[in-house]
Amino acid sequence: MNKYITSLQIFVCAIFITLSANAQEHPSLILTKSGVEKIRAELGNVPLFDASLEKLKQQVDAEIALGIDTPIPKDYSGGYTHVRHKRNMYVMQQAGALYQILDDEKYAKYVKDMLLQYEEMYKTLPLHPKTRSYARGKLFWQCLNDSNWLVYVSQAYDCIYNYLSKAERKKLENNLFRPFADHISVDSPQFYQRVHNHSTWGNAAVGMIGLVMNDKELIDRALYGIPGLEMDKSAKDDDGGFINKEGKAGFLANIEEPFSPDGYYNEGPYYQRYAMYPFLIFAEGLHNVKPELKIFEYKDGVLLKSINALLNLSDADGDFFPLNDGQKGMSYYTDALVSAVDISYYYGSQDPGLLSIAAKQNKVLLDDSGLAVALGVKNGKATPFNKKSINLSDGPEGKQGGVGILRSENLELVFKYASQGSSHGHYDKLSYSFYNNGNEVLQDYGLARFVNIEQKGGGNYLKENKTWAKQTIAHNTLVQNEKSHYQGKYDIGSKYHPDLYLFDDSNASVQIVSAKETNAYPETEMHRTMAIIKDDSFENPFMLDILKVDADSTNQYDLPFYFLGQVIKTNFEYEVPNTLETLGNDNGYQHLWSEGCGSTTEENTKISWLDKGKFYTLTSTISKDDELRFVRIGANDPKFNLRREAGFIIRRKDTQNTMFVSITESHGSYSPVTESAINSNSNIKELKVILDNVDYTAISITTVNDITKVFIIANNNASKKATHTLNINDKNYEWSGSYYFK
Amino acid sequence: MNKYITSLQIFVCAIFITLSANAQEHPSLILTKSGVEKIRAELGNVPLFDASLEKLKQQVDAEIALGIDTPIPKDYSGGYTHVRHKRNMYVMQQAGALYQILDDEKYAKYVKDMLLQYEEMYKTLPLHPKTRSYARGKLFWQCLNDSNWLVYVSQAYDCIYNYLSKAERKKLENNLFRPFADHISVDSPQFYQRVHNHSTWGNAAVGMIGLVMNDKELIDRALYGIPGLEMDKSAKDDDGGFINKEGKAGFLANIEEPFSPDGYYNEGPYYQRYAMYPFLIFAEGLHNVKPELKIFEYKDGVLLKSINALLNLSDADGDFFPLNDGQKGMSYYTDALVSAVDISYYYGSQDPGLLSIAAKQNKVLLDDSGLAVALGVKNGKATPFNKKSINLSDGPEGKQGGVGILRSENLELVFKYASQGSSHGHYDKLSYSFYNNGNEVLQDYGLARFVNIEQKGGGNYLKENKTWAKQTIAHNTLVQNEKSHYQGKYDIGSKYHPDLYLFDDSNASVQIVSAKETNAYPETEMHRTMAIIKDDSFENPFMLDILKVDADSTNQYDLPFYFLGQVIKTNFEYEVPNTLETLGNDNGYQHLWSEGCGSTTEENTKISWLDKGKFYTLTSTISKDDELRFVRIGANDPKFNLRREAGFIIRRKDTQNTMFVSITESHGSYSPVTESAINSNSNIKELKVILDNVDYTAISITTVNDITKVFIIANNNASKKATHTLNINDKNYEWSGSYYFK
Repeated sequence: MNKYITSLQIFVCAIFITLSANAQEHPSLILTKSGVEKIRAELGNVPLFDASLEKLKQQVDAEIALGIDTPIPKDYSGGYTHVRHKRNMYVMQQAGALYQILDDEKYAKYVKDMLLQYEEMYKTLPLHPKTRSYARGKLFWQCLNDSNWLVYVSQAYDCIYNYLSKAERKKLENNLFRPFADHISVDSPQFYQRVHNHSTWGNAAVGMIGLVMNDKELIDRALYGIPGLEMDKSAKDDDGGFINKEGKAGFLANIEEPFSPDGYYNEGPYYQRYAMYPFLIFAEGLHNVKPELKIFEYKDGVLLKSINALLNLSDADGDFFPLNDGQKGMSYYTDALVSAVDISYYYGSQDPGLLSIAAKQNKVLLDDSGLAVALGVKNGKATPFNKKSINLSDGPEGKQGGVGILRSENLELVFKYASQGSSHGHYDKLSYSFYNNGNEVLQDYGLARFVNIEQKGGGNYLKENKTWAKQTIAHNTLVQNEKSHYQGKYDIGSKYHPDLYLFDDSNASVQIVSAKETNAYPETEMHRTMAIIKDDSFENPFMLDILKVDADSTNQYDLPFYFLGQVIKTNFEYEVPNTLETLGNDNGYQHLWSEGCGSTTEENTKISWLDKGKFYTLTSTISKDDELRFVRIGANDPKFNLRREAGFIIRRKDTQNTMFVSITESHGSYSPVTESAINSNSNIKELKVILDNVDYTAISITTVNDITKVFIIANNNASKKATHTLNINDKNYEWSGSYYFK
Repeated sequence: MNKYITSLQIFVCAIFITLSANAQEHPSLILTKSGVEKIRAELGNVPLFDASLEKLKQQVDAEIALGIDTPIPKDYSGGYTHVRHKRNMYVMQQAGALYQILDDEKYAKYVKDMLLQYEEMYKTLPLHPKTRSYARGKLFWQCLNDSNWLVYVSQAYDCIYNYLSKAERKKLENNLFRPFADHISVDSPQFYQRVHNHSTWGNAAVGMIGLVMNDKELIDRALYGIPGLEMDKSAKDDDGGFINKEGKAGFLANIEEPFSPDGYYNEGPYYQRYAMYPFLIFAEGLHNVKPELKIFEYKDGVLLKSINALLNLSDADGDFFPLNDGQKGMSYYTDALVSAVDISYYYGSQDPGLLSIAAKQNKVLLDDSGLAVALGVKNGKATPFNKKSINLSDGPEGKQGGVGILRSENLELVFKYASQGSSHGHYDKLSYSFYNNGNEVLQDYGLARFVNIEQKGGGNYLKENKTWAKQTIAHNTLVQNEKSHYQGKYDIGSKYHPDLYLFDDSNASVQIVSAKETNAYPETEMHRTMAIIKDDSFENPFMLDILKVDADSTNQYDLPFYFLGQVIKTNFEYEVPNTLETLGNDNGYQHLWSEGCGSTTEENTKISWLDKGKFYTLTSTISKDDELRFVRIGANDPKFNLRREAGFIIRRKDTQNTMFVSITESHGSYSPVTESAINSNSNIKELKVILDNVDYTAISITTVNDITKVFIIANNNASKKATHTLNINDKNYEWSGSYYFK
């Protein structure tokens, strides 16, 4: 806390010094006068920049040809007025940049005319008629979208500032920008005065228009929040999140709080992507207008670190892992990441790996940073951006769990032991998802929402997001007694987080992540260790999963595996019912059809499936009383909001302490063109727990060719320096470090 | 029949003349001595050929390094011995070609050594131990695979013929090739002596080894079947098809019967693709060894026409439409189509469109035809292969229905009014599938089989193929009283076929196909007219579907729409059940879960869905008593053999004559990257039947902008020259031709 106040104090001083300076030149916010000169000088010589410019010009010219429309607001997301105002904000920002770069007045005039229309409308505009939001905007149904608008429009205003007469500027500032900034801040504190991605947009909007208007009050309000405002610490927003429990607010607090020192954003990559644009574009503005603030060095350079973290939170195709409320398919091809990559390159250390992503994006910002990137690509400096295994701590000080990503060949394991993740968090402690070459093998469901598709609940969160997507059973993690972690309650979840036990990617052949969680269920400790192991006796690396449960009472445990694809083979018998019933009544179970149930007297269950031309086999240790259940998502889904995807659940009843061990193999391939099935069978003959006590867990893996490997983990000593000696079945094992594999 | 006998007579004469000639040179079958000289002269100068050669060389060298294995046969498809013998046949054929082209003895030695191992094994080899086939092979579980083997190995033998000593040749011919050819023919007449793709392989195998061995008896047996053999006309094979009802047999009969004059193969494209290789490779051999037979001109050049038909039976990605028992994903990238494209180019009219497909295939045959194609590509002659709308008649004389394909912009409608399609046919008269840019919008399920995946029923047809995939309810066509067409009986289905009423693609904006079926259900006529209409008041072309039913009694009608994707919106209320029950008990209904049921008092139902970033809306005329049902495939599927895909069914009960009219629109788009939903709503306000009588059916389509278009079809006069005058609601319509649209 001391450290935080100290940074703030330094900033306060800096701001005072700066604001006493004289009126600034324009543009100065994102484009700068000198930057524009450089850009103009290079025009026609830098293919990526020229192409981005040309594409934008075509789009803006087409919009100008259509004429200006600033309709009276009435719709939710996806409806006409929403879409039109959103489009207007982009086009104004783009036209502003084109005016500067191409020096063609038609773009300035277009922005001016539109702004004056907005001014005319806004000065008498009431709250947006749609009432669903906890903080209604005026142009849009929520302040969030109004803030988006102002972030873009500030840039447009800066670009045409000198084109406007003083009287026009005064009119716009008095009737549009200032009241607009007030509405999303002082008039909407439940939106503005908090640590949340919504507020970051609000802060950036207020701050950016403040920078253009050279308005100290707005800039201060942006950086530190509304002065002297006391918030109700128990109030919650639409998503069930606390509005402001800690009393923190403002842009700097929004950097301090949600980002861990590693740059992980506590709501996860989907929301980080959404928040990155205001973080970075406002930072760029601050850097340009107030370079003495050294905003890119704030909190040990966390803004730039966060971009690296975010890029590492994407799969082989560049799609972000859908942690928490993440919509699948969002990727680093989104415009926010064009900004992020360009700004990271230019204001960071000119990492040539970023250039290869920029080249894939095939688009750059039309500013100094975009020019630098386009020049880098032109000059052949790009190198591949190699994503590696990475552990990203969560929490402002990196002490609230985290996300561990293990990468080996085409495989990616995303192990989530993070904190609640604000109001967008899921009750999914120690869950994971598993990818092969950018395709989901064992999926995280993501959210239940069709963002901006109006027909689906106005494009907003659907009720199945709470009743299904957030629930524990929707994730690849343990459910005790059919209840979600932390009772499925946000305020309980927000108090706790799992703790890292071990992350070790130092040996590329045996990479391991392990964490413990003691608060999700009463008097229960879950300790999950996951490893990706590359071994010569297997075609591909395989994933080992050891979940050790210690509880004070007997419980029912469900461990789901949400595999994608078609079941090819099981080694156990099961019955399929004649009518489908739900697996349970609440906590997400009401959304699962029970498609089959079996059991086995074998020591291992095996289930193989085929997806996108690859075979997979899950081999699990099992007891004869375990129920082996097939489920299908989609029960109690009256609007067809859920995807009808499969799951396999190991259910263990009346059990106190226990252990779930499994291996997921990726093997072979199938092509419908050659119709040949290659290596379609598992390579594992036996998976066995050969020792399990308080101190050690040992697993043996025997292949079909009778090669046996042993994996041992020390359960309470993760030191890399510790030495261990252990006798199992008359064989001595000696090693140093936290695990053994041979 | 006369025509058929005449062609045979000419052939018989030709054969006599030829076989009296002297011993031929080698290679002569596929590679020829002069061809090899040309190839050697061009080596290193023709990129596509060189690359194909290099790739093959690497593969064959790797196989040679592994050593030869000719295991004692024991497995079904997908098992080791099956896969190994299959691999051996390819490698021998390839090594033979490499020997000729590269003049490197190691390849010849490899083939020789392997052949001698086969000879050693084969001379005492009993029938294959697996008993499932109606015609067991020796190396494989069915004669079909044995025939595949001989087709490839004949080519290998031809290539190393001169490398072998006379004694070696004698040994191979007496102990391996001749008894092998006898086993698949005279010893297995139920396999060989019929008109079926299996027999085509058998004929080609016997004929090709006959050509290499210069064995007149085998060549005759290949061309005309086993002389003097009387078959049981009522016997059936494993798939329920008659073995030989007509008494026809031999390669020429196999060209006569299954191909229509347009080149449509009666089992559909998936099986045509499979059959093309023996048809073409044997034809190439006949052309080379017996050019006087003019095999490529046989039946008006149908073999080459069939390649054009087959290419047109693929979607925008080159995937074949899965008519009848077709496995999805099979495409013109398969090796059989590399042969087909190369042979079609070389022996046909050097269509430069074929070169663009060859370039995509990125592979050519290592023979004269492949060299010609590679040279064409090298010399920049390739032009796009533009698939157009096409009507392909079915039946030996083109009089047994057909398949009509309408193409407009990115959309493809595949309308199936073909005959039963041999034992691989489905009970799906007047059904259709609908594609957008190579993606299925309204799907044909295809087959229930995982070809060559041993874990799934040995890689063979699964029982759900009969109980689900072949049944009428599995298709986008009408089901009366929950029964399949023709009682779901092969022998009844084989007697009848729908008849074309009209195919007209002359106006690119209004393309239309229409057919009638009077035998699928007792005393019932179905007349279905489908059109793809491009109209300025719509974003994209739309599909109009008019199904007119005349029956002598009251019935229940089900019309399913197997849409793929997520439901976005409906304009009617429906209930979803708490437990899922099947829609019925048999004829495929037992495989459908009833996921929802509703009704409406509106005149139209609308259901919109989203798939792969595109919106679609189905608008249908409806009566208030209609049941609107959502179904899900996958009930009674104890081995998870079926895909859990959706369907929407309009059910109309207690009805005699009736009319189902619907429009499917493709509109707008959604991207998870930009998160913007464009044009996500239907453009249709009202769809209405404004007239329906014996002579005419008239439909009005009113858009949301109140533009009304009228479509009228004359029901019993498809003449393009007829003139019509009609008064509907006090408005006069006059036109000439079979339909009106304005």
